[in-house]
Amino acid sequence: MKYPLQLLKLIALLKKFPGVGSKTAERFAFQLLSWPEHQLSDYALLLATLKQDIKHCPDCHCLMADERCDFCDLSKRDPHILCIIASAKDAFTLEETRAFRGLYHVIGGLLSPIDGRHPQHLNFQDLQKRIEKHQVKEVIIALDSTLEGDTTALYLKEQLDKQNIKVSRLAFGLPMGSSLDFVDGGTLSRALTGRQFF
Amino acid sequence: MKYPLQLLKLIALLKKFPGVGSKTAERFAFQLLSWPEHQLSDYALLLATLKQDIKHCPDCHCLMADERCDFCDLSKRDPHILCIIASAKDAFTLEETRAFRGLYHVIGGLLSPIDGRHPQHLNFQDLQKRIEKHQVKEVIIALDSTLEGDTTALYLKEQLDKQNIKVSRLAFGLPMGSSLDFVDGGTLSRALTGRQFF
Repeated sequence: MKYPLQLLKLIALLKKFPGVGSKTAERFAFQLLSWPEHQLSDYALLLATLKQDIKHCPDCHCLMADERCDFCDLSKRDPHILCIIASAKDAFTLEETRAFRGLYHVIGGLLSPIDGRHPQHLNFQDLQKRIEKHQVKEVIIALDSTLEGDTTALYLKEQLDKQNIKVSRLAFGLPMGSSLDFVDGGTLSRALTGRQFF
Repeated sequence: MKYPLQLLKLIALLKKFPGVGSKTAERFAFQLLSWPEHQLSDYALLLATLKQDIKHCPDCHCLMADERCDFCDLSKRDPHILCIIASAKDAFTLEETRAFRGLYHVIGGLLSPIDGRHPQHLNFQDLQKRIEKHQVKEVIIALDSTLEGDTTALYLKEQLDKQNIKVSRLAFGLPMGSSLDFVDGGTLSRALTGRQFF
């Protein structure tokens, strides 16, 4: 006995969420079946208008709720420091730290030649234009500490080194509140290399 | 900096999926933002028409893809054995085993006085009618082996014992392919009690 066709279609779509396999997608689909009608139509409406309601800033590619990008507001932010992030979500995470008051630039992913993601697929073109426009003095690369993150950071460093700009990357080391016992060897080795004198 | 309002609404809805907390809901929402327009509208349309496309059988409460319920097809199934399940999803899981050819009855949940789910909230009323109509000889209770499942099974047994019907419940014991080392004490104790002579 197979699931009804519309349910199979729904399950196929739900499997596109990160970390969701067949079993979880089935659970989600049956959960949706149990939702009241008004909640389902709210959800449907949100999805149908999502791209119209939430736009990306044409300059920094962060999310904009209205016509003006809060992340590009030069009255509140220092345009000489630029933070390069992979996704628009990262800007919100970094804002929460209150430790950065410069501009952001979302490149929209990480380089991964194996998956066919090359420099032309990321927002590198307008990065150079923004650096010139705002006379950026320092670029902070805030990318994942993964193979793809490392590759992308290296590529960016090579591109930016040709110009008179300070380039840095987020520090690697122990997460706050962690015990040495529970930290993996790779992290510990990076924490040693990057040790801070005081 | 807060997420745009529509994104916050979307995250609130995504948190209603089982096992999805704030962090996962945020990841899902940003994943949806990255979907192409046509895929978002497919998803929206599926959700908007979900309740019209997929109906529950008025007799057994299983899912129906068209006007006729495959689970109630008496030309292929034995009406004298009735299997009581909590959710419409369980019927598909049981069908996959090919070990049951009787009828199903979805009660739509489990009793849980603490959460306010009492017998009147479950599909118990028409259960009695169906037992009489099909002259059911045997009822198999296929509910979770949880506190709520036990409570509901006990309630059903009490109701059905008054009539001349064999009532059984799914066996408890070792999962197939498991090692005694990895089985919890409760399961092992139930496997001992329910040991099978040969």
